[in-house]
Amino acid sequence: MSIENSGYTGFAVTYLKIASLLGLAVAAYAQRTAALVSPEVHADHTVTFRIKAPKASEVTLTGDWLGNTPPPKLTRDDQGVWSITLGPLEPSIYIYSFTVDGMAIADPVNPRMKLRASTSASLLEVPVEPSAFWEAHDVPHGAVEINWEKSKVIHGETRQIWIYTPPGYEKGSARYPVLYLLHGSNDTAAGWTMAGNANFVLDNLLAEKKLVPMIVVMPFGHATPFGVPVAPGESSNDAVFEDYLLKDVLPLVEAKYRVAPGRQNRAIAGLSMGGGQSLKIGLGHLDLFSAVASFSGAIPGDFETRFAGLLKDPTAANSKLQALWIGCGRQDSLFTRSRSLDELLTAHSVRHTFREIDGVHNYTVWRRFLAEYAPLLFR
Amino acid sequence: MSIENSGYTGFAVTYLKIASLLGLAVAAYAQRTAALVSPEVHADHTVTFRIKAPKASEVTLTGDWLGNTPPPKLTRDDQGVWSITLGPLEPSIYIYSFTVDGMAIADPVNPRMKLRASTSASLLEVPVEPSAFWEAHDVPHGAVEINWEKSKVIHGETRQIWIYTPPGYEKGSARYPVLYLLHGSNDTAAGWTMAGNANFVLDNLLAEKKLVPMIVVMPFGHATPFGVPVAPGESSNDAVFEDYLLKDVLPLVEAKYRVAPGRQNRAIAGLSMGGGQSLKIGLGHLDLFSAVASFSGAIPGDFETRFAGLLKDPTAANSKLQALWIGCGRQDSLFTRSRSLDELLTAHSVRHTFREIDGVHNYTVWRRFLAEYAPLLFR
Repeated sequence: MSIENSGYTGFAVTYLKIASLLGLAVAAYAQRTAALVSPEVHADHTVTFRIKAPKASEVTLTGDWLGNTPPPKLTRDDQGVWSITLGPLEPSIYIYSFTVDGMAIADPVNPRMKLRASTSASLLEVPVEPSAFWEAHDVPHGAVEINWEKSKVIHGETRQIWIYTPPGYEKGSARYPVLYLLHGSNDTAAGWTMAGNANFVLDNLLAEKKLVPMIVVMPFGHATPFGVPVAPGESSNDAVFEDYLLKDVLPLVEAKYRVAPGRQNRAIAGLSMGGGQSLKIGLGHLDLFSAVASFSGAIPGDFETRFAGLLKDPTAANSKLQALWIGCGRQDSLFTRSRSLDELLTAHSVRHTFREIDGVHNYTVWRRFLAEYAPLLFR
Repeated sequence: MSIENSGYTGFAVTYLKIASLLGLAVAAYAQRTAALVSPEVHADHTVTFRIKAPKASEVTLTGDWLGNTPPPKLTRDDQGVWSITLGPLEPSIYIYSFTVDGMAIADPVNPRMKLRASTSASLLEVPVEPSAFWEAHDVPHGAVEINWEKSKVIHGETRQIWIYTPPGYEKGSARYPVLYLLHGSNDTAAGWTMAGNANFVLDNLLAEKKLVPMIVVMPFGHATPFGVPVAPGESSNDAVFEDYLLKDVLPLVEAKYRVAPGRQNRAIAGLSMGGGQSLKIGLGHLDLFSAVASFSGAIPGDFETRFAGLLKDPTAANSKLQALWIGCGRQDSLFTRSRSLDELLTAHSVRHTFREIDGVHNYTVWRRFLAEYAPLLFR
């Protein structure tokens, strides 16, 4: 990137690069001022986190790369700045927050926020040279369009649907297949774009001619109030979301965008909560979807009874499913659920791919799964 | 909204409504759990802010509706929850943050973040019944598309450009005039959408047939690193931004979107820093723009010398400017700068509108100015 010839060096290059991805140009601040910088990514991919909290008595850090290890403690200097250097970290975009005397907060000086359904956190990007598959390369870029639609299903809420269209979509009259791509618990419709870089992942695959150009639809997966237990007699979040996806989102997409018709041009995939939703909705509607994937999915506990018919007679499913794909990181606490599903599907001769890699429950894994799964679609 | 028939009442209705605008459905949390709620908007439009910080010794609140009054102090209960009730507040969307023992932070439990170029803050929506001009009504909605473009001008950064297209844009082959709409200092390309609700303002005006359908282009206005003083010999932020707008943004817009050709179909407006940029770029390029507006603008200090030619012989400008519009809130610290510009333009017989209303330096004023100015355009 020509940014490296601009006179900013070291962390400032990294920081500018991060900032530029968000549409920001914050950076290099500390080079010319005395302002606090956090996070600071070093050349060796270690990262220093800093927060000024002179009166605090304990500050810890939560990071989605830490898995189940206890939150590390920061140490205080004589100016009241708490800091810690961790890593080196594998290049990726991570989610983290500070806990100051029991109060969990986003990093106050990092403009790159993680939008969530509840609570606040920040994003850390550890970039890689040469550019990784999930970074913005100098290739044609698709766009992500935020649509607002008043839901017929969910209390009349006006909800966001983020929709990726591939580069060149606005030209010509071609119709495109559609991937419905679902996020996890406590995330939003913005997650796959702003933390997952799904758009850049797909742009890069397209530039390498590894992908059938497709539209990617990213709705908001919390259909009942997040964090509130569903009352007796009320439908579960997944049940309401399924209704919402099929009755609100799908009709908007088919009416507004130039989509190729039919189930063979429709896939559904999701991460964590969204993985479970994808399995329920996709396998429950083989009339609508021809490909289904779960990334580190919350596999439905009732899978065996819910899909008893499919498991008993897999011929129909095998003939209809172009790509059934289950992936999970080995260090993910949900790993055994994905592996059990793999074993169940294998025992019943349901054709599928099971993919396990080293990794915890974060976008580092999900970005990679998207980059592996998307090229299989619509072939 | 049918949300009010859903069984959630009081603050929960408000909160759900807020959440739904963000694409979230967080809410009603405290109705069924013991979780902290902040902000809580009461029926009389007073607002209670809460933060749990048991070990803190002082917590204050900063809010963009407070103008130059000192930040009010919160009081602590025996559970370590600090709170304050303010208002009643005029219905609007506001920006606020807490300062906990000197540390400025976003509200840790409010998912509605204000994205900024530096530092973090939260959004508070005080809704109004019947729905205000800036809320999501049950009318056709336009969409906002995030475009990524590698800049030729700014260090090769890949920057975001948010672009509103009116409802129905995707149908047919009509061409549309374009308003370039600029944000203020420490804001981002997302600001006019996520805090300004510009999309809903325009949707509502369109539904009332008060607006010529238009495309609205919202680029990122920080072209040099935010908060870093420009070194001797370097171009100012406004100068680099002008170059960026004309050489990167405008060509992308004209190539990708169905825009109506010519200066008569191009307007530029902005708030605060963006108001100053609009005046410099718009009046400096009457070959490109036919309408210019400054909302609470950072009026260029060198306006009189910069535009000496225009002021000396206003005939050309008067024949070319379809709508030159200067607005500011009377309680805004920038007010006298706007009024001085009004007087200067009047003294030199430059045709323009000067609009003053009660208000400080915030989106409450800017949303209203947009709703007043946009209907004047492209007539």
